[in-house]
Amino acid sequence: MTQPTVTRTGATVSMKSGGYYSQRTRGAKDVIDNASGMLLDAVAAIPAPQDGQPVRIADFGTADGGTSKAAIYKTVAALRVRFPDDQIVVTYTDLPSNDYSRLFKNMLGLTEDQGNLYLNDFDGVFVQACGIGFHRQLLPDSSLDIGFSATAMHYVSEKPCDIEDHVHMVGASGAALKAFSQRAADDWQNILLARARELRPGGRLVIMNFGKDEEGRYLGHTGGVNMFDTFHLHWKAMADEGRITGQEYTRATFPQFYRTKEEFCAPLLDETSPVYEAGLRLVSAHTGVVRCPYQVAFENDPSMTAREFAVSYVPTLRSWSETVFANALDQGRDAAERAELVDEFYQRYEDMVADAPDGHAMDYVHCYLAIEKVP
Amino acid sequence: MTQPTVTRTGATVSMKSGGYYSQRTRGAKDVIDNASGMLLDAVAAIPAPQDGQPVRIADFGTADGGTSKAAIYKTVAALRVRFPDDQIVVTYTDLPSNDYSRLFKNMLGLTEDQGNLYLNDFDGVFVQACGIGFHRQLLPDSSLDIGFSATAMHYVSEKPCDIEDHVHMVGASGAALKAFSQRAADDWQNILLARARELRPGGRLVIMNFGKDEEGRYLGHTGGVNMFDTFHLHWKAMADEGRITGQEYTRATFPQFYRTKEEFCAPLLDETSPVYEAGLRLVSAHTGVVRCPYQVAFENDPSMTAREFAVSYVPTLRSWSETVFANALDQGRDAAERAELVDEFYQRYEDMVADAPDGHAMDYVHCYLAIEKVP
Repeated sequence: MTQPTVTRTGATVSMKSGGYYSQRTRGAKDVIDNASGMLLDAVAAIPAPQDGQPVRIADFGTADGGTSKAAIYKTVAALRVRFPDDQIVVTYTDLPSNDYSRLFKNMLGLTEDQGNLYLNDFDGVFVQACGIGFHRQLLPDSSLDIGFSATAMHYVSEKPCDIEDHVHMVGASGAALKAFSQRAADDWQNILLARARELRPGGRLVIMNFGKDEEGRYLGHTGGVNMFDTFHLHWKAMADEGRITGQEYTRATFPQFYRTKEEFCAPLLDETSPVYEAGLRLVSAHTGVVRCPYQVAFENDPSMTAREFAVSYVPTLRSWSETVFANALDQGRDAAERAELVDEFYQRYEDMVADAPDGHAMDYVHCYLAIEKVP
Repeated sequence: MTQPTVTRTGATVSMKSGGYYSQRTRGAKDVIDNASGMLLDAVAAIPAPQDGQPVRIADFGTADGGTSKAAIYKTVAALRVRFPDDQIVVTYTDLPSNDYSRLFKNMLGLTEDQGNLYLNDFDGVFVQACGIGFHRQLLPDSSLDIGFSATAMHYVSEKPCDIEDHVHMVGASGAALKAFSQRAADDWQNILLARARELRPGGRLVIMNFGKDEEGRYLGHTGGVNMFDTFHLHWKAMADEGRITGQEYTRATFPQFYRTKEEFCAPLLDETSPVYEAGLRLVSAHTGVVRCPYQVAFENDPSMTAREFAVSYVPTLRSWSETVFANALDQGRDAAERAELVDEFYQRYEDMVADAPDGHAMDYVHCYLAIEKVP
């Protein structure tokens, strides 16, 4: 779920297919599993379906559906208890480039992940997909009971500019930071307005996104080595050494924004905002840190070498960051050369971790929101 | 649309991706375009949507959505005229292995096919996909206004046996033909029962499928050289010459059945059938032949050589038949060897056409059905 939606940046931000993603994103699944209670709260809170209509839930920015499968199973099971006679439709959304074959195979039990097959275990449950970014309305008016999204909406709809002296907005300042902030605020409003149209009165949203917490922590920056500074360090070194050009250095800019809890909540609390006027209300908001499963495994296994940790850890970073660096490279270079440069970049990161593993961790920092549409 | 649904035969019957399919299936698009009047009749016949509910239409076995795009556009336009204030949902279904990225990109205008972009031209239209075979129910009860399917339901859900002395049921006899007939009858009943559950009372189906017409004609068998006999001729020759094994020869069996108009209509006319009891009624049925666009082009261009015709014509056959022959080959052979044998097979076909082009044509023979669910 780390890399799900839009970014019409020209440069593609598509994910690798074929299960690579789910396997490398155990932490993302932990985040969802920890928050599945919020989905059960939503199940308890929504109004009964209209006569003859199914209960409709949606997972926005779902990737291959692997990380949310257990949580969606629990949600479907709880809906079936509360509404035993009503059918259920689960809609999965993501970018057009997403691997929907893998998604449907996951749902049908045609992959190695045989768990939580709610299509097998419950009658009257139907699955749909929508391959359009969630910055626009994807479902008909007043048709959605519960909307869910995990680790997806930190992607901005369009990169407003390149960040010239860093790779991510967490290291940006001045005009670049301002441009990213404005884009993120506009996007968040559009995302919420689209969901407001889709939701039935009384419907709920459960949304957990990468963000900055009250202590200034964010993904890969929770007290140890700063992950995005490390990305920048190695990318800049490759530029300084002439391995990549200055333009390639600059172009590596994550189309992301990590909002604070206040930024997430603002349009839901400001009575004059279009989102508030559209009927969305904040139910709850909190931040939380989920520890990096790779660092935890390293700590718990005294026999693991620093190199082994580095080899296990860096691919999880690479799974969602690789396209940013690969697409920053000049397309005039041949594909093999580009692949080699990207390999070198992550090799530098891996070598650094293997040399001094302490403090390297991609802890997840999320803001968890429950939102209601006024009944 | 030629190769859309299920066949849980172990052997995959997936299509080639990336637009290869639509480009090679101009005839399939012609079939749909010729029948779009049936969709407009359906638009005129369905009841108004329930208060607040969208009009829902579905294309079952859609491939990349290219061949039906113009017909769906006309349908959406006609729905918007009849129901100006109601939203519309279009659901596309196919096998899990289908190329849904290509489908969504087609709908969004992100491919070379820029025509008929109804998502751009109309507000309040939404697109979904369902990557599950249409032999089971895919949509909630009573949620569908118009179901459409073109050139898809000749695929049986499972190959009941290999045909030992031919590659297709059109050349089968005895126990093999009986097994295919029974499977096709069961499948057709299941397909219709699933649609009966999905349809709203008063909803319509518009279904056009490969079949046998009143004169015994079927795809590639309309008076000239019989296409399936030609497939068999070359495949058998490769077996006789020891290029492929006897087992590989036998295993090449299309998981298809070409029903007659009577077979299509039977469950809709027999008042004791489960389909009739489920409320489905025949509105109209007719057969029709759409001429092979490649043969027509050859006839109309005196400068085209027989080889040029063969080179243009054989790929349209290959687009939907290749997997049958490729999957019949022993998986113990390496991939390059299998590819070489398949190339050789189609090269033999091409050489035969180039030597004597007369009578080679893949004319489309369809049975066109309009079906209503009793209001």
